[in-house]
Amino acid sequence: MRSASQLLTLLERRDVQALPMLKALYPHTGKALLLGVTGPAGVGKSTLINRLITVFRKKRKSVGVLAVDPRSPLSGGAILGDRLRMHEHFLDKGVFIRSLATRGSWGGISPSLFGAIHVLDAMGKEIIIIETIGVGQDEVRIAQLAETVLVVLSPGMGDAVQTMKAGLLEIGDVMAVNKADVLQSDPLRQELQESDPNRPVLEVSAEAGSGISELLSTLEGFFKKKDLVRSRKARFAREELQWLLYERLEAQGKGFPFTEDLISQVVLRKKDPYTLIEGWEKERN
Amino acid sequence: MRSASQLLTLLERRDVQALPMLKALYPHTGKALLLGVTGPAGVGKSTLINRLITVFRKKRKSVGVLAVDPRSPLSGGAILGDRLRMHEHFLDKGVFIRSLATRGSWGGISPSLFGAIHVLDAMGKEIIIIETIGVGQDEVRIAQLAETVLVVLSPGMGDAVQTMKAGLLEIGDVMAVNKADVLQSDPLRQELQESDPNRPVLEVSAEAGSGISELLSTLEGFFKKKDLVRSRKARFAREELQWLLYERLEAQGKGFPFTEDLISQVVLRKKDPYTLIEGWEKERN
Repeated sequence: MRSASQLLTLLERRDVQALPMLKALYPHTGKALLLGVTGPAGVGKSTLINRLITVFRKKRKSVGVLAVDPRSPLSGGAILGDRLRMHEHFLDKGVFIRSLATRGSWGGISPSLFGAIHVLDAMGKEIIIIETIGVGQDEVRIAQLAETVLVVLSPGMGDAVQTMKAGLLEIGDVMAVNKADVLQSDPLRQELQESDPNRPVLEVSAEAGSGISELLSTLEGFFKKKDLVRSRKARFAREELQWLLYERLEAQGKGFPFTEDLISQVVLRKKDPYTLIEGWEKERN
Repeated sequence: MRSASQLLTLLERRDVQALPMLKALYPHTGKALLLGVTGPAGVGKSTLINRLITVFRKKRKSVGVLAVDPRSPLSGGAILGDRLRMHEHFLDKGVFIRSLATRGSWGGISPSLFGAIHVLDAMGKEIIIIETIGVGQDEVRIAQLAETVLVVLSPGMGDAVQTMKAGLLEIGDVMAVNKADVLQSDPLRQELQESDPNRPVLEVSAEAGSGISELLSTLEGFFKKKDLVRSRKARFAREELQWLLYERLEAQGKGFPFTEDLISQVVLRKKDPYTLIEGWEKERN
């Protein structure tokens, strides 16, 4: 049996060797609680996750963290970077932190993300935190794989953030306003509360460590919502199947079937792309 | 012959009726100059495009604008909104402005975007401006379809924007720093200039209308770079073929083949997704 790290690397490369291992470990999964943490860059997600890891560890829960970046085709250097960011847990055997490149070959999400979650689950991690870097359609979709979604915002991030919040407002089960100690968070808090009066909005300071235990109990309240967790688990299964399917369809395409010469003819308007695609389809059937 | 607007609606819906029309008009395309305009929300892209339309119109060039949003599955209300934003050109027959939803069914870019560009090109639009709303991997990819890419930034947008700039820095042929009249733009301008000393960085104020003619002549300089335009046109053709191909592969998948009952069994770990996908593949072959 290879180490979890090696298996994650195989998965990230979509190496076929990972497949029998995934099949073997799948029946041992489904026990972990998945927490998605998302929000714009610079709001302090990693620092807050660091704090959450500490409180989960105090409760003797083992924790896995996957920092996923759907923009990057391969994670490379980010792995070390993320470990360093969460350095205080680096030597704790009960904490496993990994960066993961999750961009699919033609865009979208790579199925390796789902496999990585199963690996951490089978390792016995009781809490798996999925941190997405950046804000976009793919990131939102990734955060939604979790059973509980925590959206982290910070006051005073201006216009750009106003737009970003749109997608984030819809997916958050719990909203955290970070940097409540140094920035005036009240207007943002109020705005968030008005967007959904029933949803918890918490002020925290990841840096100073305030508001963390309230955040923890709110999250634990969500972990206990059996119906919600069940429907989220079904969504996860559906998404994994869909991306696996998509990957197979891509593989059946066996790469890009048009030569540079054909492309020149399209550029020169001697051929049109629609007739070329029809020809390609006929040839395959 | 239907109107261009009707054809664009058919395209957006991926209605098969659009296909023979696209084939018929394709030989009449390839003459327009494609200008991509991208940048974070709130930097004043639309106001700047408004200014550019005015100067192109003074030179008696007909202009088409496609405001594309890869986040949204259908544009809906945005159409009217965008027309209103560029209201001063609303009654000008030489200007055609359209919002377009360009999200593919499973993510990525919908091939309708390419078709829409061909329609505007065949209509005789000499300049086609592709404005992307928001900043992300898909937006960057869309902006790169153009022969010249203008990236619009604005000073003082903070941390979130620092991150966004990463992808934008790589794709801009010309960088415009907007709001140069009200915000201190010098540090941003300098930073952009240092990132690539050979690339033009221009300070403009879309609101006040300053710096627009310098921007125009810089863009026109790019339109004249024959080798660059040729290589960009080849990239466009390759991308269109790739997304058409991807769409066909999706269609061959004939929708999602797994029932809710099967998904429950996956959730309960009675079945694993990998064996299900293998079964699906065997059945099809």
